[in-house]
Amino acid sequence: MSMKSYRQELHFRTDKRRDFINITPLVRNVLHESGIKDGLCLVNSMHITSSVFINDDEKGLHSDFETWLEKLAPEKPYSQYRHNGFEDNADAHLKRQIMGREVVIAITNGELDFGTWEQIFYGEFDGMRDKRVLVKIIGE
Amino acid sequence: MSMKSYRQELHFRTDKRRDFINITPLVRNVLHESGIKDGLCLVNSMHITSSVFINDDEKGLHSDFETWLEKLAPEKPYSQYRHNGFEDNADAHLKRQIMGREVVIAITNGELDFGTWEQIFYGEFDGMRDKRVLVKIIGE
Amino acid sequence: MSMKSYRQELHFRTDKRRDFINITPLVRNVLHESGIKDGLCLVNSMHITSSVFINDDEKGLHSDFETWLEKLAPEKPYSQYRHNGFEDNADAHLKRQIMGREVVIAITNGELDFGTWEQIFYGEFDGMRDKRVLVKIIGE
Repeated sequence: MSMKSYRQELHFRTDKRRDFINITPLVRNVLHESGIKDGLCLVNSMHITSSVFINDDEKGLHSDFETWLEKLAPEKPYSQYRHNGFEDNADAHLKRQIMGREVVIAITNGELDFGTWEQIFYGEFDGMRDKRVLVKIIGE
Repeated sequence: MSMKSYRQELHFRTDKRRDFINITPLVRNVLHESGIKDGLCLVNSMHITSSVFINDDEKGLHSDFETWLEKLAPEKPYSQYRHNGFEDNADAHLKRQIMGREVVIAITNGELDFGTWEQIFYGEFDGMRDKRVLVKIIGE
Repeated sequence: MSMKSYRQELHFRTDKRRDFINITPLVRNVLHESGIKDGLCLVNSMHITSSVFINDDEKGLHSDFETWLEKLAPEKPYSQYRHNGFEDNADAHLKRQIMGREVVIAITNGELDFGTWEQIFYGEFDGMRDKRVLVKIIGE
């Protein structure tokens, strides 16, 4: 088969500093638009204070993620981080390393090749501003 | 060259809640079956309470991983996590974020293009049930 | 289009045990040499005590990463880790899991398809020896 490629950006602006958004339906729409039936799909944050990751769509778990990430990389006091001279988002850069920048997803028979509970999330750690997620698909 | 694709699932059921399994020989077998000589190989957990990662095949280190992950995201008390209303595996969802969902491996000359010590592991954090790992290879 | 592939290794030897090196210009050079205009680029450490990751090129933040990783996975006392029988680098294996082994980058119009602030780093956690990073590009 001969290689095809498709690219699209998703746009987000959260009301809160931190939030988790299920972007699975958006990524699936991009895949179907692409017409690609078999290959690999990269989904990555185009920013360095947010994440794309795969986990469970369950509100209690998202609350646990929030509490846990605040324990591992607390937002405050801002003065604890050297990055926070003109910024206040050092914690967001750290949180994003734990949750990851990107996921790579197999495409099979024109669908996201997922286990039962896999859902794709945009994880925002420095929100209330315009952010972008890149979807890039290569295959046939 | 023209693009080829190959897909196979690996199946696991651990005896313990948490375990690390070296799956490098299994992934290598899938690669050789595929006949693909050059490209990219995605290996990902199809579950959200387990990981695929690359590190050292050394028993002391695996014991260190277990101790460390329990310190960063303790299993108990179960009641510390809001996800644990009907579940008891919130810690497994957190541990999986640290260890990662997937690896992408270069394929060169029909082999996994690895450094000397790189080995692929399935990291189980909520075991004693049937689990699947996806191997998807694209290339030529 | 028909698939092309390109492979190159980057070589590093840091003066310190831990260091962060911006490798974006090196990866961009490899991409331009490849002639590939559209596809995916994998950049991974070939070692298990170092990372490749994408974040901000800001010295204060790198200092925060150092402090934070030492808190989450301290180097000393060496005796706290079972891996450290003949080694002293167990902490480096743990730090690498938080920061990640690899990144996958979209290639569009012959360039790294990046957001404004995305920069690629080699993160060394057990330095003062020869290390390698693999760049593998597939596409058209």
